[in-house]
Amino acid sequence: MSVTAARGFTAAGIAAGIKQNGDRDLALVVNNGPGRAAAGVFTANRVQAAPVRWSRQVLADGGIRAVVLNSGGANACTGPQGFTDTCATAERTAELLGLATADVAVCSTGLIGVPLPMDRVLNGVASAVTRLSAAGGQDAAAAVMTTDTVPKTAAVTRGAWTVGGMAKGAGMLAPGLATMLVVLTTDAALDSAALDRALRDATRVTFDRVDSDGCMSTNDTVLLLSSGASRLTPDYAEFAEAVRTVCADLARQLIGDAEGASKEIRVEVVGAASEHDAVEVGRSVARNNLLKCAVHGEDPNWGRVLSAIGTTSAAFEPDRLGVAINGVWVCKGGSVGEDRALVDMTGREVRITVDLAAGTDCAVIWTNDLTADYVHENSEYAS
Amino acid sequence: MSVTAARGFTAAGIAAGIKQNGDRDLALVVNNGPGRAAAGVFTANRVQAAPVRWSRQVLADGGIRAVVLNSGGANACTGPQGFTDTCATAERTAELLGLATADVAVCSTGLIGVPLPMDRVLNGVASAVTRLSAAGGQDAAAAVMTTDTVPKTAAVTRGAWTVGGMAKGAGMLAPGLATMLVVLTTDAALDSAALDRALRDATRVTFDRVDSDGCMSTNDTVLLLSSGASRLTPDYAEFAEAVRTVCADLARQLIGDAEGASKEIRVEVVGAASEHDAVEVGRSVARNNLLKCAVHGEDPNWGRVLSAIGTTSAAFEPDRLGVAINGVWVCKGGSVGEDRALVDMTGREVRITVDLAAGTDCAVIWTNDLTADYVHENSEYAS
Repeated sequence: MSVTAARGFTAAGIAAGIKQNGDRDLALVVNNGPGRAAAGVFTANRVQAAPVRWSRQVLADGGIRAVVLNSGGANACTGPQGFTDTCATAERTAELLGLATADVAVCSTGLIGVPLPMDRVLNGVASAVTRLSAAGGQDAAAAVMTTDTVPKTAAVTRGAWTVGGMAKGAGMLAPGLATMLVVLTTDAALDSAALDRALRDATRVTFDRVDSDGCMSTNDTVLLLSSGASRLTPDYAEFAEAVRTVCADLARQLIGDAEGASKEIRVEVVGAASEHDAVEVGRSVARNNLLKCAVHGEDPNWGRVLSAIGTTSAAFEPDRLGVAINGVWVCKGGSVGEDRALVDMTGREVRITVDLAAGTDCAVIWTNDLTADYVHENSEYAS
Repeated sequence: MSVTAARGFTAAGIAAGIKQNGDRDLALVVNNGPGRAAAGVFTANRVQAAPVRWSRQVLADGGIRAVVLNSGGANACTGPQGFTDTCATAERTAELLGLATADVAVCSTGLIGVPLPMDRVLNGVASAVTRLSAAGGQDAAAAVMTTDTVPKTAAVTRGAWTVGGMAKGAGMLAPGLATMLVVLTTDAALDSAALDRALRDATRVTFDRVDSDGCMSTNDTVLLLSSGASRLTPDYAEFAEAVRTVCADLARQLIGDAEGASKEIRVEVVGAASEHDAVEVGRSVARNNLLKCAVHGEDPNWGRVLSAIGTTSAAFEPDRLGVAINGVWVCKGGSVGEDRALVDMTGREVRITVDLAAGTDCAVIWTNDLTADYVHENSEYAS
């Protein structure tokens, strides 16, 4: 599992003292080759943290050899010093590993607007280098956690090659892409163009369709590194499917561990005139605070679903809309449908199906309910 | 105050038994003339309640003589029967008042997807007609309340003419326009074109800049009726200012009474390249759940403000952004500014100022904090 499931990778996760509670807070993932191809997808937020700007630059040549990640501080909105700090982190890592500085990507997560304690970060890098191991994936996954309650890892093996990965993220989960840090690794041998295509194809329908709280972070990063250690170059479609499977698994874990959530809500939009319409409607429903409260209260309030649909520009006729909650079509033809008393919402997963009756396209967006615990977690301390 | 502050209007508010708790739930406002000019602004939601569709139609000729409003049921998503019910309500009101059916606007508010108890509504109309009085404005304001804790009324007098009004709304408050029912009255003599212009000018910068929870209703209606009883036709600018003042007063009252809120948040965007940019940024900040939680916790978390700005398409450079919270510029040049410990957020009103440093336009959006009480109020029963 995790980033060391694929051959050719070592990893470590250690406590560098960046987090005040002494938990692991610095992770290192190293690609030992023979390949160094890589691809990345970054936040669509226009306010981007220093490590996002750095990693975007070093990926420009299609390859990296290492990723250093820290929790305990986002290094976002930290001015020129923040970028200098990211650069110094990459430099120290490269020096210790005998790499070029431009071969090291950097990811940070935590509070925005607070400078990193660079002495601890740099000492942490030195410590992590000594702990690198082919069994270090789990420690690395633990070291990137912030408000996550569990580390998130996944892997699939297809014959002789593997795609594995780790993710962190529990709040600020919203499209473009879903706010988190993810490192994926594979021992399949692919060039950066193929990796980039597979990664974008996968994130578009997985991480980008997770919308926990409508809030987009400044630090989102998803990296995919290929060691080529299997010496095999799989069929593109087969590889893309494996990447998508790992991404979907990790995305589902993010929703399952979202801050304060008591329900996971699967919003499926069918009968759309286009995939774009389906995604727009799904996101609008997934972001509706009143609906998310209703789901928390196990109230099949389909009127709030219709209100949310009505704010979109998707093709539909109001009097043809249908809404099912956990399989009961409580709204038919834009009006009262089956008895809402038939809906059982006691389970942790709630399925909302919207039929736009305007075409054949569909999409699924995942979100969570809105709870008092979410409010407490995000109001009682800076995070 | 209220809808009977201007001469030429009578009103009533009675308990018709639509609400199960026996509270007032049916209001009637009658324009006794001599004029009958009127204008209306309605929800931008594409899923529109039957009374919205009805009232839009009857306003097409630029005049109405009466408005009947009920709480206790939105008559939204109720199919053809819902429209028939609205029509029957207008018919009965017209019959009793000796008016044409097309002279009666109808507004409803309450739960979506539930048919109105029409026997009670129609008996209620008959009862309200017998209670009409020039002192009935306050009762009418009470009868449109749903989760509102107080009736909301306002009035301004300019020399010999007056603009007054009432509003209801405590949840689903969001642009396009801010979800609520509002009836404004004036004894100034204006034609429907002038009323329409003044109403749109006013709602654009008042109700349309209130965003309590990002949720847009199916029933929003703002009506402005002129009796012309003062026999005076004021200067347009002076009249428009009076309408804007009443609307701003009512909008502020809506935010002050929003469901579960403990803080009122004034988001002012300055230095924008256009008013459109200022509004877009203000709304993005006002809708950010994480920021709204932080304000609830009195945490000056400016990083969440920057995250929200970064999701917009407004003109700005990230390293020129400034954010002040209650006057303390905690973010300058897109990075750490004045000491956040200087920010006092203990008051009920919190001012967030965003300087885009990209121009000279500005806008103000009002919102509320996100609280556990909001979650409880919207999850523990259908509303």
